[in-house]
Amino acid sequence: MIFPSVAAFEAALGTLSAPDESARMAAAVRQGQLTKPPGSLGRLEEVAIFLAGWQRRERPVVERGRAIVFAGNHGVVARGVSAFPAAVTVQMVANFEAGGAAINALARAAGLSLAVVPLDLDRPTADFTSGPAMSEAECLAALNAGAGAIGDADLIVLGEMGIGNSTAAAALAAASFGGAPRDWVGPGTGVDAAGIARKVEAVAAGLAAHAGALTSAFEILRRLGGREIAAIAGAVVAARQAGVPVVMDGFICTSAVAPLAAHHPAITDHLIAGHCSAEPGHRRLLERLGLAPLLSLDMRLGEGSGAAVAVGVIRAALAAHDSMATFAEAGVSVG
Amino acid sequence: MIFPSVAAFEAALGTLSAPDESARMAAAVRQGQLTKPPGSLGRLEEVAIFLAGWQRRERPVVERGRAIVFAGNHGVVARGVSAFPAAVTVQMVANFEAGGAAINALARAAGLSLAVVPLDLDRPTADFTSGPAMSEAECLAALNAGAGAIGDADLIVLGEMGIGNSTAAAALAAASFGGAPRDWVGPGTGVDAAGIARKVEAVAAGLAAHAGALTSAFEILRRLGGREIAAIAGAVVAARQAGVPVVMDGFICTSAVAPLAAHHPAITDHLIAGHCSAEPGHRRLLERLGLAPLLSLDMRLGEGSGAAVAVGVIRAALAAHDSMATFAEAGVSVG
Repeated sequence: MIFPSVAAFEAALGTLSAPDESARMAAAVRQGQLTKPPGSLGRLEEVAIFLAGWQRRERPVVERGRAIVFAGNHGVVARGVSAFPAAVTVQMVANFEAGGAAINALARAAGLSLAVVPLDLDRPTADFTSGPAMSEAECLAALNAGAGAIGDADLIVLGEMGIGNSTAAAALAAASFGGAPRDWVGPGTGVDAAGIARKVEAVAAGLAAHAGALTSAFEILRRLGGREIAAIAGAVVAARQAGVPVVMDGFICTSAVAPLAAHHPAITDHLIAGHCSAEPGHRRLLERLGLAPLLSLDMRLGEGSGAAVAVGVIRAALAAHDSMATFAEAGVSVG
Repeated sequence: MIFPSVAAFEAALGTLSAPDESARMAAAVRQGQLTKPPGSLGRLEEVAIFLAGWQRRERPVVERGRAIVFAGNHGVVARGVSAFPAAVTVQMVANFEAGGAAINALARAAGLSLAVVPLDLDRPTADFTSGPAMSEAECLAALNAGAGAIGDADLIVLGEMGIGNSTAAAALAAASFGGAPRDWVGPGTGVDAAGIARKVEAVAAGLAAHAGALTSAFEILRRLGGREIAAIAGAVVAARQAGVPVVMDGFICTSAVAPLAAHHPAITDHLIAGHCSAEPGHRRLLERLGLAPLLSLDMRLGEGSGAAVAVGVIRAALAAHDSMATFAEAGVSVG
């Protein structure tokens, strides 16, 4: 157990580490010496310097990049919030394990190992519109399942699978940052207007049912979230303790950070937003978190798919940072 | 000589091939069967279907991806339009050949071979503000140098190096699509406000000097372009004849297509805009060409650097398209 108690989890959020400023500075100096106009590699430069700070070395590497997909089931599915039946969660986990899903192909293309972590799929969370989604013990177990999954990775990519979880994500975002339910609800895997209306109603009912009780990151997560979402939150905090940068995926993945950031804004410092999803709430959520996505490819699949594609950009950034010649080495005139 | 005469080049532009609709359709049908909500891979799906059409196969591949960097020198540099001296062009070519430039690192990271094609660097084009940049023979030779460089690639990434060439690019864009010179001029490698003013003056002078003579794609290219830009145009047209898709880089690379598209709009059909550069004219130019960039990473280096990073996204698209399971194969319920 990385977090033996709720208090230990909250304490970890209260004592967040900082990146290594001397490694950041050394990387920034190096970027200024490479054979290109200063700043001309744009976000590739920023990514290399960011990773230098968190990996505490002038030349960061991705040698043990790991994608982790957490899966969970949701009681709120009973309210007709998804285009797919709940059985698809376990079917897709089997697909991940057989190697046939998008994240299998995309993790392989990005040179990432892939871990799949199903979380009590035969025990959906409770319907959050009428009570907490999870007990304290259940939520703590999910946080620890996430924290325990990061292993010895030097870069972590987080993803999720869970029929119904875009409704939980919208509830988490609204509870964390305010706004009307309809600001955070979207089509998810593809519900129609009536489905969106049912999602809005479910989020509103959830916020009403837990009014006054959403007083900490943990309470928001356990009352409105799901096991896979709590696991992502646990992985994010454990990665921070280990000084490992994390690439976030779409709306649902990012929603796991919303309750943490609402109470502890510095939690986003070691996060890269891999992409901006087509799910409309994601752009709004990234703005609230102060995260600028690397990619914007109209993806809306989850599973860590957008984050895995972003790793290609991160690898390109590190390749340029590590192997380019300096002006002095190449004998090129400085402008 | 791919294009033995100017007439042969213009004839090629007048008889542009189409993609294979049956391969496109087969790829689109396959995308609809893969284990994901329809459309949820966004632009990855679009890229896979696009490549299927041009490669004339349901499952396109990138096995012989090739980046080509053309380099040229520009007489207009005498007008103080660049932050770097003209000597940097040949120095950077040496850096490409030694493996120390950004494109070396990025091509390697993307699994691309790299060809560097310097074009008469000791003979800059003429200053286009007082006469044509190139003679007919010079421009035709540059077009053929580009056309001859595509080899047997199955995907081509185009880039350029040439101190002063963002001024030529602005002139080409203005001559092709109209607008004021200041709409197309930007800081390039990093000139200050006075440098930008000199660039605007040069573009205005060039447009005035050639008024009435900019009557064909070839005439625009030879009067206002440069050898590396004409080579890119030649490579684009030769790739189209060979049915090979092309990934375009930034503002200067894209400006090579502007004169072609102004007279033959279908020339863009086999092109992917790899990225949108930080150079302000690039977004405007992509809009005029109807090309939606894959990436937007504030890059502004040229060399094919942004296009090479985009190849990572293209590879991810093809990996998902080729190796994902269908709903039937995986036993997953359709929504």
